[in-house]
Amino acid sequence: TILCAFDYLLFSNMNSFEAFVHALTTLSTGGFSTSDASIGYFSQGAQWVAIVFMFFGGLPFLLWVRIFQGKYMAFLKDSQVQFFIGLLAILISLICFYLVISGTISNFFEALRSAAFMVLTLVTTTGYGATGGHAGYYTSWGPFIVTLALFLTYVGGCTGSTAGGFKIFRIQISFAFAYKQLRHMIRPHGVFPIHFNGKIVSDDAMASILLFSVAWILTVALTTLALGFLGVDLVTAFTGASTAIANVGPGLGDIIGPDGNFSTLPDAAKWVLSLAMLLGRLEIMTLLVLFIPDFWKN
Amino acid sequence: TILCAFDYLLFSNMNSFEAFVHALTTLSTGGFSTSDASIGYFSQGAQWVAIVFMFFGGLPFLLWVRIFQGKYMAFLKDSQVQFFIGLLAILISLICFYLVISGTISNFFEALRSAAFMVLTLVTTTGYGATGGHAGYYTSWGPFIVTLALFLTYVGGCTGSTAGGFKIFRIQISFAFAYKQLRHMIRPHGVFPIHFNGKIVSDDAMASILLFSVAWILTVALTTLALGFLGVDLVTAFTGASTAIANVGPGLGDIIGPDGNFSTLPDAAKWVLSLAMLLGRLEIMTLLVLFIPDFWKN
Repeated sequence: TILCAFDYLLFSNMNSFEAFVHALTTLSTGGFSTSDASIGYFSQGAQWVAIVFMFFGGLPFLLWVRIFQGKYMAFLKDSQVQFFIGLLAILISLICFYLVISGTISNFFEALRSAAFMVLTLVTTTGYGATGGHAGYYTSWGPFIVTLALFLTYVGGCTGSTAGGFKIFRIQISFAFAYKQLRHMIRPHGVFPIHFNGKIVSDDAMASILLFSVAWILTVALTTLALGFLGVDLVTAFTGASTAIANVGPGLGDIIGPDGNFSTLPDAAKWVLSLAMLLGRLEIMTLLVLFIPDFWKN
Repeated sequence: TILCAFDYLLFSNMNSFEAFVHALTTLSTGGFSTSDASIGYFSQGAQWVAIVFMFFGGLPFLLWVRIFQGKYMAFLKDSQVQFFIGLLAILISLICFYLVISGTISNFFEALRSAAFMVLTLVTTTGYGATGGHAGYYTSWGPFIVTLALFLTYVGGCTGSTAGGFKIFRIQISFAFAYKQLRHMIRPHGVFPIHFNGKIVSDDAMASILLFSVAWILTVALTTLALGFLGVDLVTAFTGASTAIANVGPGLGDIIGPDGNFSTLPDAAKWVLSLAMLLGRLEIMTLLVLFIPDFWKN
Protein backbone atom coordinates (compact mmCIF):
# COMPACT_ATOMS: atom_id res chain seq x y z
CA THR A 1 0.00 0.00 0.00
CA ILE A 2 2.85 2.40 0.84
CA LEU A 3 4.57 1.51 -2.44
CA CYS A 4 1.29 2.19 -4.30
CA ALA A 5 0.85 5.59 -2.59
CA PHE A 6 4.42 6.47 -3.45
CA ASP A 7 3.84 5.53 -7.11
CA TYR A 8 0.67 7.62 -7.30
CA LEU A 9 2.69 10.60 -6.02
CA LEU A 10 5.50 9.92 -8.48
CA PHE A 11 3.58 9.13 -11.69
CA SER A 12 0.43 11.28 -11.38
CA ASN A 13 -0.68 14.72 -10.24
CA MET A 14 -2.16 13.42 -6.96
CA ASN A 15 -1.19 15.24 -3.77
CA SER A 16 0.01 13.18 -0.83
CA PHE A 17 -3.46 12.88 0.74
CA GLU A 18 -5.06 11.74 -2.53
CA ALA A 19 -2.21 9.32 -3.19
CA PHE A 20 -2.57 7.75 0.27
CA VAL A 21 -6.37 7.47 0.05
CA HIS A 22 -6.31 5.93 -3.42
CA ALA A 23 -3.56 3.50 -2.41
CA LEU A 24 -5.83 2.26 0.39
CA THR A 25 -8.72 1.62 -2.01
CA THR A 26 -6.57 0.19 -4.83
CA LEU A 27 -4.90 -2.68 -2.95
CA SER A 28 -8.12 -3.52 -1.11
CA THR A 29 -9.98 -3.56 -4.49
CA GLY A 30 -12.50 -1.20 -2.84
CA GLY A 31 -12.56 1.51 -5.48
CA PHE A 32 -13.60 4.57 -3.46
CA SER A 33 -12.23 7.88 -4.69
CA THR A 34 -12.07 11.50 -3.57
CA SER A 35 -13.60 12.60 -6.88
CA ASP A 36 -16.86 11.78 -8.68
CA ALA A 37 -14.78 11.24 -11.84
CA SER A 38 -12.77 8.66 -9.84
CA ILE A 39 -9.29 7.93 -11.22
CA GLY A 40 -10.29 9.80 -14.39
CA TYR A 41 -9.98 13.07 -12.43
CA PHE A 42 -6.21 12.69 -12.26
CA SER A 43 -3.49 12.58 -14.93
CA GLN A 44 -3.06 9.49 -17.14
CA GLY A 45 -0.20 8.15 -15.00
CA ALA A 46 -2.64 7.42 -12.17
CA GLN A 47 -4.39 4.87 -14.39
CA TRP A 48 -1.15 2.96 -15.00
CA VAL A 49 -0.38 2.86 -11.28
CA ALA A 50 -3.96 1.70 -10.58
CA ILE A 51 -3.65 -1.02 -13.29
CA VAL A 52 -0.53 -2.50 -11.69
CA PHE A 53 -1.75 -2.36 -8.10
CA MET A 54 -5.30 -3.54 -8.83
CA PHE A 55 -3.64 -6.58 -10.43
CA PHE A 56 -1.61 -7.10 -7.25
CA GLY A 57 -4.80 -6.72 -5.21
CA GLY A 58 -6.48 -9.48 -7.23
CA LEU A 59 -3.71 -12.03 -6.51
CA PRO A 60 -3.88 -14.48 -3.57
CA PHE A 61 -2.26 -12.73 -0.60
CA LEU A 62 -0.71 -15.95 0.71
CA LEU A 63 1.60 -15.97 -2.29
CA TRP A 64 3.06 -12.61 -1.20
CA VAL A 65 4.11 -14.30 2.02
CA ARG A 66 5.85 -16.97 -0.07
CA ILE A 67 7.75 -14.19 -1.86
CA PHE A 68 8.93 -12.73 1.44
CA GLN A 69 10.04 -16.25 2.34
CA GLY A 70 12.25 -16.14 -0.74
CA LYS A 71 10.08 -18.43 -2.91
CA TYR A 72 10.03 -16.01 -5.86
CA MET A 73 8.61 -18.48 -8.36
CA ALA A 74 5.56 -19.39 -6.23
CA PHE A 75 3.36 -16.98 -8.22
CA LEU A 76 4.17 -18.45 -11.59
CA LYS A 77 3.70 -22.04 -10.40
CA ASP A 78 0.21 -21.38 -9.01
CA SER A 79 -2.40 -22.59 -11.48
CA GLN A 80 -4.93 -19.97 -10.37
CA VAL A 81 -2.45 -17.15 -11.01
CA GLN A 82 -1.52 -18.65 -14.38
CA PHE A 83 -5.17 -18.74 -15.39
CA PHE A 84 -5.75 -15.20 -14.04
CA ILE A 85 -2.81 -13.75 -16.00
CA GLY A 86 -3.81 -15.67 -19.14
CA LEU A 87 -7.40 -14.46 -18.89
CA LEU A 88 -6.35 -10.84 -18.33
CA ALA A 89 -3.91 -11.01 -21.27
CA ILE A 90 -6.60 -12.39 -23.61
CA LEU A 91 -9.22 -9.86 -22.49
CA ILE A 92 -6.90 -6.84 -22.66
CA SER A 93 -5.54 -7.85 -26.10
CA LEU A 94 -9.06 -8.46 -27.41
CA ILE A 95 -10.39 -5.09 -26.22
CA CYS A 96 -7.25 -3.18 -27.23
CA PHE A 97 -7.36 -4.79 -30.70
CA TYR A 98 -11.08 -3.99 -31.05
CA LEU A 99 -10.59 -0.36 -29.98
CA VAL A 100 -7.79 0.20 -32.52
CA ILE A 101 -9.45 -1.70 -35.40
CA SER A 102 -12.85 -0.05 -34.90
CA GLY A 103 -11.14 3.37 -34.76
CA THR A 104 -12.61 4.10 -31.30
CA ILE A 105 -9.12 4.88 -29.96
CA SER A 106 -6.51 5.14 -32.72
CA ASN A 107 -3.40 5.48 -30.51
CA PHE A 108 -2.18 1.99 -29.55
CA PHE A 109 -0.83 2.88 -26.10
CA GLU A 110 -3.94 4.86 -25.28
CA ALA A 111 -6.05 1.86 -26.32
CA LEU A 112 -3.86 -0.51 -24.30
CA ARG A 113 -4.11 1.62 -21.16
CA SER A 114 -7.87 2.07 -21.57
CA ALA A 115 -8.38 -1.68 -22.15
CA ALA A 116 -6.14 -2.70 -19.24
CA PHE A 117 -7.83 -0.21 -16.89
CA MET A 118 -11.31 -1.35 -17.87
CA VAL A 119 -10.51 -5.06 -17.53
CA LEU A 120 -8.70 -4.71 -14.20
CA THR A 121 -11.18 -2.37 -12.55
CA LEU A 122 -14.05 -4.78 -13.41
CA VAL A 123 -12.35 -8.16 -12.98
CA THR A 124 -10.71 -7.31 -9.66
CA THR A 125 -14.07 -5.82 -8.52
CA THR A 126 -12.36 -2.51 -7.68
CA GLY A 127 -14.85 -0.45 -9.68
CA TYR A 128 -12.81 2.72 -10.32
CA GLY A 129 -14.11 4.90 -13.14
CA ALA A 130 -12.03 6.80 -15.68
CA THR A 131 -14.58 8.98 -17.40
CA GLY A 132 -12.38 12.06 -17.21
CA GLY A 133 -9.73 10.46 -19.44
CA HIS A 134 -9.71 12.08 -22.88
CA ALA A 135 -10.48 8.76 -24.58
CA GLY A 136 -13.81 8.64 -22.73
CA TYR A 137 -14.75 5.44 -20.93
CA TYR A 138 -16.10 2.02 -21.86
CA THR A 139 -19.75 3.04 -21.78
CA SER A 140 -19.11 5.08 -24.94
CA TRP A 141 -17.15 2.35 -26.79
CA GLY A 142 -20.14 0.64 -28.40
CA PRO A 143 -22.30 -2.41 -27.62
CA PHE A 144 -19.53 -5.04 -27.82
CA ILE A 145 -17.50 -3.42 -25.05
CA VAL A 146 -20.61 -2.70 -22.96
CA THR A 147 -21.71 -6.34 -23.26
CA LEU A 148 -18.23 -7.52 -22.36
CA ALA A 149 -18.26 -5.17 -19.34
CA LEU A 150 -21.37 -6.96 -18.05
CA PHE A 151 -19.66 -10.36 -18.14
CA LEU A 152 -16.37 -9.01 -16.74
CA THR A 153 -18.35 -7.87 -13.69
CA TYR A 154 -18.90 -11.52 -12.76
CA VAL A 155 -15.33 -12.81 -13.06
CA GLY A 156 -13.73 -11.64 -9.82
CA GLY A 157 -10.15 -12.04 -8.63
CA CYS A 158 -8.27 -15.02 -7.19
CA THR A 159 -9.40 -16.79 -4.03
CA GLY A 160 -7.38 -15.47 -1.11
CA SER A 161 -7.49 -11.88 -2.36
CA THR A 162 -9.92 -9.13 -1.29
CA ALA A 163 -11.57 -9.20 -4.73
CA GLY A 164 -15.18 -10.42 -4.88
CA GLY A 165 -17.01 -11.93 -7.84
CA PHE A 166 -17.29 -15.53 -8.95
CA LYS A 167 -13.52 -16.04 -8.42
CA ILE A 168 -10.91 -17.48 -10.75
CA PHE A 169 -10.60 -20.97 -9.19
CA ARG A 170 -14.37 -21.56 -9.54
CA ILE A 171 -14.21 -20.62 -13.22
CA GLN A 172 -11.22 -22.93 -13.70
CA ILE A 173 -12.91 -25.85 -11.97
CA SER A 174 -16.22 -25.28 -13.80
CA PHE A 175 -14.38 -25.43 -17.11
CA ALA A 176 -12.45 -28.52 -16.01
CA PHE A 177 -15.73 -30.14 -14.95
CA ALA A 178 -17.39 -29.33 -18.30
CA TYR A 179 -14.44 -30.80 -20.20
CA LYS A 180 -14.44 -33.90 -17.99
CA GLN A 181 -18.16 -34.48 -18.55
CA LEU A 182 -17.84 -34.04 -22.32
CA ARG A 183 -15.03 -36.61 -22.42
CA HIS A 184 -17.18 -38.83 -20.23
CA MET A 185 -19.95 -38.68 -22.86
CA ILE A 186 -17.54 -40.13 -25.41
CA ARG A 187 -15.88 -42.67 -23.08
CA PRO A 188 -18.54 -43.59 -20.49
CA HIS A 189 -16.16 -45.87 -18.59
CA GLY A 190 -13.22 -43.46 -18.57
CA VAL A 191 -11.99 -41.92 -15.33
CA PHE A 192 -11.09 -38.24 -15.69
CA PRO A 193 -10.04 -36.71 -12.36
CA ILE A 194 -10.03 -32.89 -12.10
CA HIS A 195 -6.75 -31.35 -10.97
CA PHE A 196 -6.16 -28.02 -9.26
CA ASN A 197 -2.61 -27.01 -8.38
CA GLY A 198 -1.49 -30.61 -8.80
CA LYS A 199 -4.11 -32.04 -6.42
CA ILE A 200 -7.24 -33.96 -7.37
CA VAL A 201 -10.47 -32.05 -6.68
CA SER A 202 -12.83 -34.24 -4.61
CA ASP A 203 -16.42 -34.83 -5.70
CA ASP A 204 -17.55 -32.96 -2.58
CA ALA A 205 -15.55 -29.84 -3.43
CA MET A 206 -16.81 -30.09 -7.01
CA ALA A 207 -20.43 -30.31 -5.85
CA SER A 208 -20.08 -27.31 -3.54
CA ILE A 209 -18.64 -25.21 -6.38
CA LEU A 210 -21.53 -26.18 -8.64
CA LEU A 211 -23.98 -25.41 -5.84
CA PHE A 212 -22.39 -21.98 -5.53
CA SER A 213 -22.95 -21.39 -9.27
CA VAL A 214 -26.61 -22.34 -9.04
CA ALA A 215 -27.09 -20.17 -5.92
CA TRP A 216 -25.24 -17.26 -7.54
CA ILE A 217 -27.46 -17.31 -10.65
CA LEU A 218 -30.63 -17.57 -8.56
CA THR A 219 -29.50 -14.68 -6.35
CA VAL A 220 -28.85 -12.47 -9.39
CA ALA A 221 -32.24 -13.45 -10.85
CA LEU A 222 -34.20 -12.84 -7.63
CA THR A 223 -32.41 -9.54 -6.93
CA THR A 224 -33.14 -8.38 -10.48
CA LEU A 225 -36.81 -9.32 -10.04
CA ALA A 226 -37.02 -7.53 -6.68
CA LEU A 227 -35.56 -4.37 -8.23
CA GLY A 228 -37.95 -4.67 -11.18
CA PHE A 229 -40.81 -4.96 -8.71
CA LEU A 230 -39.66 -1.66 -7.16
CA GLY A 231 -39.91 0.02 -10.57
CA VAL A 232 -36.25 -0.10 -11.63
CA ASP A 233 -35.79 -0.63 -15.39
CA LEU A 234 -34.39 -3.92 -16.75
CA VAL A 235 -30.81 -2.83 -17.55
CA THR A 236 -30.39 -0.99 -14.23
CA ALA A 237 -31.98 -3.87 -12.29
CA PHE A 238 -29.95 -6.62 -13.95
CA THR A 239 -26.57 -4.88 -13.97
CA GLY A 240 -27.24 -3.40 -10.52
CA ALA A 241 -27.93 -6.87 -9.10
CA SER A 242 -24.81 -8.22 -10.86
CA THR A 243 -22.50 -5.45 -9.69
CA ALA A 244 -23.83 -5.61 -6.11
CA ILE A 245 -23.47 -9.40 -5.79
CA ALA A 246 -20.00 -9.34 -7.37
CA ASN A 247 -19.07 -6.34 -5.15
CA VAL A 248 -17.77 -4.38 -8.14
CA GLY A 249 -19.49 -0.98 -7.92
CA PRO A 250 -20.70 0.51 -11.20
CA GLY A 251 -23.44 -1.12 -13.29
CA LEU A 252 -24.47 -0.21 -16.82
CA GLY A 253 -26.92 2.30 -18.24
CA ASP A 254 -27.44 5.99 -17.59
CA ILE A 255 -28.38 5.69 -13.91
CA ILE A 256 -25.85 3.37 -12.29
CA GLY A 257 -23.17 3.21 -15.01
CA PRO A 258 -19.63 4.44 -14.21
CA ASP A 259 -20.78 8.02 -14.99
CA GLY A 260 -23.77 7.82 -12.66
CA ASN A 261 -24.51 6.63 -9.14
CA PHE A 262 -27.15 4.85 -7.07
CA SER A 263 -28.54 7.96 -5.34
CA THR A 264 -31.68 8.28 -7.49
CA LEU A 265 -32.87 4.69 -6.89
CA PRO A 266 -35.82 4.26 -4.50
CA ASP A 267 -34.87 3.59 -0.85
CA ALA A 268 -36.31 0.07 -0.98
CA ALA A 269 -34.02 -0.71 -3.94
CA LYS A 270 -31.04 0.36 -1.81
CA TRP A 271 -32.11 -2.11 0.89
CA VAL A 272 -32.34 -4.88 -1.71
CA LEU A 273 -28.91 -3.99 -3.11
CA SER A 274 -27.43 -3.83 0.41
CA LEU A 275 -28.65 -7.36 1.07
CA ALA A 276 -27.27 -8.44 -2.32
CA MET A 277 -23.84 -6.96 -1.51
CA LEU A 278 -23.85 -8.77 1.83
CA LEU A 279 -24.84 -12.07 0.16
CA GLY A 280 -22.09 -11.62 -2.44
CA ARG A 281 -19.45 -10.75 0.15
CA LEU A 282 -20.37 -13.73 2.36
CA GLU A 283 -20.43 -15.97 -0.73
CA ILE A 284 -24.18 -16.69 -0.40
CA MET A 285 -23.99 -20.18 1.21
CA THR A 286 -23.32 -18.87 4.72
CA LEU A 287 -26.63 -17.00 4.61
CA LEU A 288 -28.64 -19.56 2.60
CA VAL A 289 -27.88 -22.29 5.08
CA LEU A 290 -29.97 -20.38 7.67
CA PHE A 291 -33.08 -21.26 5.65
CA ILE A 292 -32.57 -25.02 5.91
CA PRO A 293 -34.67 -26.55 8.74
CA ASP A 294 -31.81 -28.95 9.66
CA PHE A 295 -29.69 -25.97 10.68
CA TRP A 296 -32.06 -25.14 13.53
CA LYS A 297 -32.39 -28.70 14.84
CA ASN A 298 -30.49 -29.41 18.12
CA THR B 1 -54.48 -30.57 -32.91
CA ILE B 2 -57.89 -31.16 -34.48
CA LEU B 3 -59.55 -30.45 -31.13
CA CYS B 4 -57.54 -27.24 -30.83
CA ALA B 5 -58.52 -26.10 -34.37
CA PHE B 6 -62.14 -26.85 -33.58
CA ASP B 7 -61.93 -24.78 -30.37
CA TYR B 8 -60.36 -21.83 -32.19
CA LEU B 9 -63.31 -21.93 -34.63
CA LEU B 10 -65.79 -22.19 -31.79
CA PHE B 11 -64.45 -19.63 -29.30
CA SER B 12 -62.84 -16.97 -31.52
CA ASN B 13 -63.39 -15.14 -34.78
CA MET B 14 -60.83 -17.23 -36.71
CA ASN B 15 -61.90 -18.67 -40.04
CA SER B 16 -61.27 -22.38 -40.68
CA PHE B 17 -57.89 -21.79 -42.36
CA GLU B 18 -56.63 -19.56 -39.51
CA ALA B 19 -57.96 -21.99 -36.90
CA PHE B 20 -56.16 -24.93 -38.56
CA VAL B 21 -52.87 -23.04 -38.99
CA HIS B 22 -52.86 -21.77 -35.39
CA ALA B 23 -53.75 -25.20 -34.04
CA LEU B 24 -50.66 -26.58 -35.79
CA THR B 25 -48.38 -23.96 -34.19
CA THR B 26 -50.05 -24.08 -30.75
CA LEU B 27 -49.63 -27.79 -29.99
CA SER B 28 -46.13 -27.84 -31.47
CA THR B 29 -45.24 -24.77 -29.31
CA GLY B 30 -43.97 -23.17 -32.53
CA GLY B 31 -45.81 -19.87 -32.31
CA PHE B 32 -46.08 -18.85 -35.97
CA SER B 33 -49.13 -16.82 -36.90
CA THR B 34 -50.85 -15.51 -40.01
CA SER B 35 -50.80 -11.98 -38.57
CA ASP B 36 -48.02 -9.66 -37.35
CA ALA B 37 -50.13 -9.04 -34.24
CA SER B 38 -50.12 -12.83 -33.70
CA ILE B 39 -52.97 -14.13 -31.49
CA GLY B 40 -53.70 -10.50 -30.53
CA TYR B 41 -55.21 -10.01 -34.01
CA PHE B 42 -58.16 -12.24 -33.12
CA SER B 43 -60.92 -11.98 -30.52
CA GLN B 44 -60.19 -12.59 -26.81
CA GLY B 45 -61.47 -16.19 -26.97
CA ALA B 46 -58.48 -17.16 -29.11
CA GLN B 47 -56.18 -16.37 -26.17
CA TRP B 48 -58.07 -18.72 -23.85
CA VAL B 49 -57.89 -21.53 -26.42
CA ALA B 50 -54.18 -20.85 -26.90
CA ILE B 51 -53.61 -20.86 -23.11
CA VAL B 52 -55.16 -24.31 -22.72
CA PHE B 53 -53.47 -25.92 -25.72
CA MET B 54 -50.04 -24.34 -25.14
CA PHE B 55 -50.25 -25.92 -21.69
CA PHE B 56 -51.05 -29.28 -23.31
CA GLY B 57 -48.13 -28.76 -25.71
CA GLY B 58 -45.76 -28.25 -22.78
CA LEU B 59 -46.67 -31.57 -21.13
CA PRO B 60 -44.71 -34.79 -21.79
CA PHE B 61 -46.31 -36.50 -24.80
CA LEU B 62 -45.75 -39.98 -23.41
CA LEU B 63 -48.29 -39.25 -20.70
CA TRP B 64 -50.97 -38.72 -23.36
CA VAL B 65 -50.36 -42.29 -24.47
CA ARG B 66 -50.90 -43.38 -20.86
CA ILE B 67 -54.26 -41.58 -20.91
CA PHE B 68 -55.31 -43.44 -24.07
CA GLN B 69 -54.30 -46.63 -22.26
CA GLY B 70 -56.84 -45.70 -19.60
CA LYS B 71 -54.32 -44.57 -16.95
CA TYR B 72 -56.06 -41.26 -16.34
CA MET B 73 -54.17 -40.37 -13.18
CA ALA B 74 -50.70 -40.73 -14.79
CA PHE B 75 -50.48 -36.95 -15.29
CA LEU B 76 -51.10 -36.06 -11.70
CA LYS B 77 -48.67 -38.68 -10.38
CA ASP B 78 -45.78 -37.43 -12.54
CA SER B 79 -43.49 -35.22 -10.44
CA GLN B 80 -42.45 -33.14 -13.45
CA VAL B 81 -46.08 -32.34 -14.29
CA GLN B 82 -46.80 -31.55 -10.63
CA PHE B 83 -43.90 -29.11 -10.57
CA PHE B 84 -44.91 -27.61 -13.94
CA ILE B 85 -48.50 -27.00 -12.81
CA GLY B 86 -47.34 -25.62 -9.46
CA LEU B 87 -44.87 -23.27 -11.14
CA LEU B 88 -47.47 -22.04 -13.64
CA ALA B 89 -50.02 -21.49 -10.85
CA ILE B 90 -47.56 -19.46 -8.77
CA LEU B 91 -46.38 -17.37 -11.74
CA ILE B 92 -49.88 -16.68 -13.07
CA SER B 93 -51.22 -15.74 -9.60
CA LEU B 94 -48.22 -13.50 -8.95
CA ILE B 95 -48.56 -11.62 -12.25
CA CYS B 96 -52.37 -11.44 -12.07
CA PHE B 97 -52.16 -10.11 -8.49
CA TYR B 98 -49.51 -7.54 -9.50
CA LEU B 99 -51.53 -6.36 -12.51
CA VAL B 100 -54.69 -5.83 -10.42
CA ILE B 101 -52.94 -4.26 -7.39
CA SER B 102 -50.80 -1.90 -9.49
CA GLY B 103 -53.91 -0.87 -11.41
CA THR B 104 -52.34 -1.89 -14.75
CA ILE B 105 -55.40 -4.03 -15.55
CA SER B 106 -58.28 -3.44 -13.16
CA ASN B 107 -60.62 -6.22 -14.39
CA PHE B 108 -59.68 -9.47 -12.64
CA PHE B 109 -60.57 -11.85 -15.50
CA GLU B 110 -58.78 -9.64 -17.99
CA ALA B 111 -55.71 -9.67 -15.72
CA LEU B 112 -55.96 -13.45 -15.28
CA ARG B 113 -56.16 -14.08 -19.02
CA SER B 114 -53.31 -11.66 -19.75
CA ALA B 115 -51.13 -13.22 -17.05
CA ALA B 116 -51.90 -16.79 -18.12
CA PHE B 117 -51.25 -16.00 -21.78
CA MET B 118 -47.93 -14.28 -21.03
CA VAL B 119 -46.70 -17.07 -18.75
CA LEU B 120 -47.72 -19.90 -21.09
CA THR B 121 -46.45 -18.34 -24.31
CA LEU B 122 -43.02 -17.75 -22.72
CA VAL B 123 -42.68 -20.84 -20.53
CA THR B 124 -43.79 -23.30 -23.20
CA THR B 125 -41.50 -21.46 -25.68
CA THR B 126 -44.42 -20.92 -28.07
CA GLY B 127 -43.77 -17.20 -28.40
CA TYR B 128 -47.19 -15.97 -29.55
CA GLY B 129 -47.78 -12.24 -29.09
CA ALA B 130 -51.01 -10.55 -28.00
CA THR B 131 -50.31 -6.89 -28.64
CA GLY B 132 -53.67 -6.37 -30.32
CA GLY B 133 -55.55 -7.22 -27.10
CA HIS B 134 -57.10 -4.10 -25.55
CA ALA B 135 -55.12 -4.56 -22.32
CA GLY B 136 -51.88 -4.11 -24.27
CA TYR B 137 -49.11 -6.63 -23.76
CA TYR B 138 -46.45 -7.34 -21.16
CA THR B 139 -43.88 -4.96 -22.61
CA SER B 140 -46.07 -2.08 -21.41
CA TRP B 141 -46.73 -3.49 -17.91
CA GLY B 142 -43.68 -1.97 -16.23
CA PRO B 143 -40.17 -3.15 -15.32
CA PHE B 144 -41.21 -5.95 -12.94
CA ILE B 145 -43.16 -7.80 -15.61
CA VAL B 146 -40.50 -7.15 -18.25
CA THR B 147 -37.81 -8.51 -15.94
CA LEU B 148 -39.95 -11.53 -15.14
CA ALA B 149 -40.49 -12.08 -18.89
CA LEU B 150 -36.72 -12.37 -19.34
CA PHE B 151 -36.47 -15.16 -16.77
CA LEU B 152 -39.62 -16.93 -18.00
CA THR B 153 -37.91 -17.20 -21.39
CA TYR B 154 -35.44 -19.65 -19.88
CA VAL B 155 -37.86 -22.01 -18.11
CA GLY B 156 -39.13 -24.21 -20.95
CA GLY B 157 -41.71 -26.99 -20.86
CA CYS B 158 -41.49 -30.59 -19.65
CA THR B 159 -39.01 -33.07 -21.09
CA GLY B 160 -40.74 -35.18 -23.68
CA SER B 161 -42.71 -32.23 -25.08
CA THR B 162 -41.83 -30.09 -28.11
CA ALA B 163 -41.12 -27.09 -25.84
CA GLY B 164 -37.50 -25.90 -25.68
CA GLY B 165 -35.82 -23.97 -22.89
CA PHE B 166 -34.01 -25.24 -19.82
CA LYS B 167 -36.83 -27.77 -19.15
CA ILE B 168 -38.77 -28.44 -15.97
CA PHE B 169 -36.97 -31.62 -14.84
CA ARG B 170 -33.56 -29.85 -14.97
CA ILE B 171 -34.93 -27.03 -12.79
CA GLN B 172 -36.38 -29.60 -10.37
CA ILE B 173 -33.14 -31.53 -10.13
CA SER B 174 -31.01 -28.36 -9.79
CA PHE B 175 -33.16 -27.26 -6.86
CA ALA B 176 -33.01 -30.73 -5.32
CA PHE B 177 -29.23 -30.70 -5.73
CA ALA B 178 -28.92 -27.26 -4.11
CA TYR B 179 -31.05 -28.39 -1.18
CA LYS B 180 -29.05 -31.61 -0.82
CA GLN B 181 -25.74 -29.72 -0.77
CA LEU B 182 -27.00 -27.22 1.79
CA ARG B 183 -28.11 -30.07 4.08
CA HIS B 184 -24.74 -31.70 3.44
CA MET B 185 -23.01 -28.52 4.75
CA ILE B 186 -24.85 -28.95 8.05
CA ARG B 187 -24.50 -32.76 8.28
CA PRO B 188 -21.29 -33.59 6.39
CA HIS B 189 -21.74 -37.34 6.92
CA GLY B 190 -25.43 -37.43 5.97
CA VAL B 191 -26.57 -39.22 2.82
CA PHE B 192 -29.23 -37.29 0.92
CA PRO B 193 -30.21 -39.05 -2.31
CA ILE B 194 -32.06 -37.00 -4.95
CA HIS B 195 -35.36 -38.48 -6.12
CA PHE B 196 -37.17 -37.93 -9.40
CA ASN B 197 -40.48 -39.68 -9.99
CA GLY B 198 -39.71 -42.06 -7.13
CA LYS B 199 -36.31 -43.11 -8.54
CA ILE B 200 -32.90 -42.03 -7.22
CA VAL B 201 -31.01 -39.74 -9.61
CA SER B 202 -27.52 -41.18 -10.24
CA ASP B 203 -24.41 -39.00 -9.77
CA ASP B 204 -23.78 -39.34 -13.50
CA ALA B 205 -27.20 -37.98 -14.46
CA MET B 206 -26.74 -35.21 -11.88
CA ALA B 207 -23.35 -34.25 -13.34
CA SER B 208 -24.67 -34.15 -16.90
CA ILE B 209 -27.51 -31.83 -15.85
CA LEU B 210 -25.05 -29.50 -14.12
CA LEU B 211 -22.81 -29.62 -17.19
CA PHE B 212 -25.80 -28.61 -19.29
CA SER B 213 -26.39 -25.59 -17.00
CA VAL B 214 -22.77 -24.46 -17.31
CA ALA B 215 -22.83 -24.95 -21.09
CA TRP B 216 -26.16 -23.13 -21.38
CA ILE B 217 -24.92 -20.06 -19.49
CA LEU B 218 -21.69 -19.96 -21.51
CA THR B 219 -23.66 -20.25 -24.77
CA VAL B 220 -25.93 -17.34 -23.79
CA ALA B 221 -22.87 -15.28 -22.77
CA LEU B 222 -20.88 -15.99 -25.95
CA THR B 223 -23.91 -15.42 -28.22
CA THR B 224 -24.60 -12.09 -26.46
CA LEU B 225 -20.96 -11.08 -26.93
CA ALA B 226 -20.99 -12.07 -30.60
CA LEU B 227 -24.13 -9.99 -31.16
CA GLY B 228 -22.56 -7.06 -29.25
CA PHE B 229 -19.50 -7.38 -31.49
CA LEU B 230 -21.82 -7.01 -34.51
CA GLY B 231 -23.15 -3.73 -33.11
CA VAL B 232 -26.38 -4.97 -31.50
CA ASP B 233 -27.25 -3.10 -28.26
CA LEU B 234 -27.05 -4.85 -24.88
CA VAL B 235 -30.76 -5.52 -24.26
CA THR B 236 -31.37 -6.77 -27.81
CA ALA B 237 -28.20 -8.89 -27.74
CA PHE B 238 -28.86 -10.46 -24.35
CA THR B 239 -32.57 -11.13 -24.76
CA GLY B 240 -32.05 -12.14 -28.42
CA ALA B 241 -29.45 -14.72 -27.38
CA SER B 242 -31.75 -15.95 -24.60
CA THR B 243 -34.83 -16.25 -26.77
CA ALA B 244 -32.92 -17.96 -29.58
CA ILE B 245 -31.26 -20.55 -27.34
CA ALA B 246 -34.53 -21.25 -25.50
CA ASN B 247 -36.36 -21.39 -28.88
CA VAL B 248 -39.03 -18.99 -27.64
CA GLY B 249 -39.26 -16.28 -30.30
CA PRO B 250 -39.63 -12.72 -29.07
CA GLY B 251 -36.94 -10.96 -27.02
CA LEU B 252 -37.25 -7.65 -25.18
CA GLY B 253 -36.76 -4.03 -26.23
CA ASP B 254 -38.03 -2.03 -29.18
CA ILE B 255 -36.34 -4.08 -31.89
CA ILE B 256 -36.99 -7.75 -31.12
CA GLY B 257 -39.71 -7.45 -28.44
CA PRO B 258 -43.13 -9.04 -29.11
CA ASP B 259 -44.11 -5.89 -31.04
CA GLY B 260 -41.03 -5.97 -33.26
CA ASN B 261 -39.10 -8.53 -35.27
CA PHE B 262 -35.56 -9.56 -36.21
CA SER B 263 -35.62 -8.14 -39.76
CA THR B 264 -33.57 -5.01 -39.00
CA LEU B 265 -30.66 -6.88 -37.39
CA PRO B 266 -27.48 -7.17 -39.48
CA ASP B 267 -27.19 -10.37 -41.58
CA ALA B 268 -24.24 -11.62 -39.53
CA ALA B 269 -26.37 -11.34 -36.38
CA LYS B 270 -28.98 -13.58 -38.04
CA TRP B 271 -26.31 -16.21 -38.69
CA VAL B 272 -25.23 -16.05 -35.05
CA LEU B 273 -28.85 -16.37 -33.87
CA SER B 274 -29.45 -19.26 -36.30
CA LEU B 275 -26.52 -21.13 -34.77
CA ALA B 276 -27.83 -20.29 -31.28
CA MET B 277 -31.29 -21.67 -32.14
CA LEU B 278 -29.69 -24.85 -33.47
CA LEU B 279 -27.56 -25.21 -30.32
CA GLY B 280 -30.63 -24.68 -28.14
CA ARG B 281 -32.75 -27.16 -30.07
CA LEU B 282 -30.02 -29.84 -29.99
CA GLU B 283 -29.47 -29.13 -26.28
CA ILE B 284 -25.90 -27.90 -26.82
CA MET B 285 -24.00 -31.05 -25.75
CA THR B 286 -24.52 -32.85 -29.04
CA LEU B 287 -22.70 -30.04 -30.84
CA LEU B 288 -20.11 -29.25 -28.14
CA VAL B 289 -18.90 -32.82 -28.09
CA LEU B 290 -17.59 -32.32 -31.64
CA PHE B 291 -14.93 -29.96 -30.24
CA ILE B 292 -13.45 -32.59 -27.91
CA PRO B 293 -10.35 -34.25 -29.46
CA ASP B 294 -11.36 -37.67 -28.02
CA PHE B 295 -14.44 -37.65 -30.26
CA TRP B 296 -12.30 -37.81 -33.40
CA LYS B 297 -9.98 -40.57 -32.17
CA ASN B 298 -10.62 -44.01 -33.76
